[in-house]
Amino acid sequence: MQMQSEQALPQGAENRLAFLSLVESDMQEVERVLTGTLREDNPLVQSVADYLLGASGKRLRPAMVILAGQFGTHRRGLTALAAAVEMIHMATLVHDDIIDHALVRRGQPAVHVRFNEQVAVLSGDFLFARAFQLFSDSGDLRVVRAAADVVHTMCTGEIAQNLDQGRVASEEGYLQRIYAKTAAFLETACRIGALGAGASPEVGDTLAAYGYALGMAFQIVDDLLDWVADPERLGKSVGEDLQEGIFTLPVIYALNNPLSRDALLAVLGAEPGPGTTDQVRTILQSSGAIDYALEKAGDYIKEALERVAALPAGAARTALESLARFVLDRDY
Amino acid sequence: MQMQSEQALPQGAENRLAFLSLVESDMQEVERVLTGTLREDNPLVQSVADYLLGASGKRLRPAMVILAGQFGTHRRGLTALAAAVEMIHMATLVHDDIIDHALVRRGQPAVHVRFNEQVAVLSGDFLFARAFQLFSDSGDLRVVRAAADVVHTMCTGEIAQNLDQGRVASEEGYLQRIYAKTAAFLETACRIGALGAGASPEVGDTLAAYGYALGMAFQIVDDLLDWVADPERLGKSVGEDLQEGIFTLPVIYALNNPLSRDALLAVLGAEPGPGTTDQVRTILQSSGAIDYALEKAGDYIKEALERVAALPAGAARTALESLARFVLDRDY
Repeated sequence: MQMQSEQALPQGAENRLAFLSLVESDMQEVERVLTGTLREDNPLVQSVADYLLGASGKRLRPAMVILAGQFGTHRRGLTALAAAVEMIHMATLVHDDIIDHALVRRGQPAVHVRFNEQVAVLSGDFLFARAFQLFSDSGDLRVVRAAADVVHTMCTGEIAQNLDQGRVASEEGYLQRIYAKTAAFLETACRIGALGAGASPEVGDTLAAYGYALGMAFQIVDDLLDWVADPERLGKSVGEDLQEGIFTLPVIYALNNPLSRDALLAVLGAEPGPGTTDQVRTILQSSGAIDYALEKAGDYIKEALERVAALPAGAARTALESLARFVLDRDY
Repeated sequence: MQMQSEQALPQGAENRLAFLSLVESDMQEVERVLTGTLREDNPLVQSVADYLLGASGKRLRPAMVILAGQFGTHRRGLTALAAAVEMIHMATLVHDDIIDHALVRRGQPAVHVRFNEQVAVLSGDFLFARAFQLFSDSGDLRVVRAAADVVHTMCTGEIAQNLDQGRVASEEGYLQRIYAKTAAFLETACRIGALGAGASPEVGDTLAAYGYALGMAFQIVDDLLDWVADPERLGKSVGEDLQEGIFTLPVIYALNNPLSRDALLAVLGAEPGPGTTDQVRTILQSSGAIDYALEKAGDYIKEALERVAALPAGAARTALESLARFVLDRDY
């Protein structure tokens, strides 16, 4: 149920992320660091490492490290930090796929499917270890601490969600959950980029606040796509979160709205049938729940844009602004 | 199959570890750090953390951090490092128990049994995160790097073992495997203690070499107990490793010995029956394989004792010597 937002950036997104061309050469270097770091003496372990590298995503998080690093005083070691951030992300994906019994990740069979569950558990740990080696080599303990903090935030959020499944029906609880799931990591990616590039504490805080707001909006939209997207473009079935007992923002809004509450509870309480998803969608649309969630995402994007407005103008700031607008424009 | 050596220190071991009384007050502080570090805002997460704390082992690894730290120039922060080392160990145990489908750990149902597999995967990650927070707070990047290195060594060793199951039939391959499984961590525990206490590089190397040799002997003896121990005292069934396709040192020796090779292959190639274990044991005993493994363990203990002889005499050195002798004297 914890499908992270990877699937929301399918092939078609590449054109729309063209503004990331600013960091293109750095991102090529990030790939080289990833390949170089995941070089193993044992050929069996190398086969696993190669498989992990083969499943390359859109690299949004390392790109944010690089972008944030443009506001510092130097760029030494930035690509290594970006690679380490991506490895943390890869580790959480491998472990999440075990947890979610996901069969496919980034276009290829999930690690636990290709190898086995044991290797998948160990591969995640292996990626964490490699990431913390890179973080420690950065020479900055604040970076190590930030990385450990965000892993802690993500794990505890997911443990809480697992043990409290389906019971979160408050907006506050939802916001906490998506912070732990997505926003905390984008916040940390920006902070690590800023720290790594020697940005001032104020600039670091601004960039982290941008990453936070961007992440919140990103996850709200991602959850919303569950209800409004074309399933083929989205890559997962409509209403999937709800089927798995996860209440996303529109559902929570409709449950807390006296005008839609009873109708929604009636649908959710009945035996699920082929028309259930459409019935829920109709309630979410007519109650204004979809619009409410969109508006909330818009508020976070506004907040993100306000944050970057405090940064020096230039190509990097423009890229951050474009990224924020892109999140709202997604329709898959 | 990766059952780490915890089960080899059952209740009765407490008396025999009495020489660890030197570090008793520090170890009480380690428990306080563990409890304080695993304090979580979310009550569901706290319930998991409490459960992890409830499964307290013999704390051999943190004791080695403290003992090694006695050869430094100060003891600030040593208990925090020891607690972090124990948390890394706890994380690997939680993940190993998923991998091994183990039902019980440290006297209580394994985490994946008490909660579920998802929570177990996440709990391990959570413990890694908490450990790296403590390591980063130590203010010493070398400690972070050493910890990340040993997690890498353990994971890659275990991945290799998983994908190459049963095929390691060389002594060299076996020694590599037990290094990754056990000795690397004891080596690192000693190194972290030395670094944390400001010991000289030479003293750090000596202590690490001691931990290495102790760990190699420890695992050889642990594997040997599979054949010579009283199953009730050992807590696992005799011949278990072999049943799971893992070749330990006596089996490898007997397979490489022309006098026992054919007899052993015949037994291993036949359909396993109630008498198989006894047949294998007889071959291992008569071929001298058991004695060979014992001698090999003795060589490592001799090496460990030679290492500590280079350290200043005193209670800490005596404790390290007693620990080394204890490993050879184990009969369960």
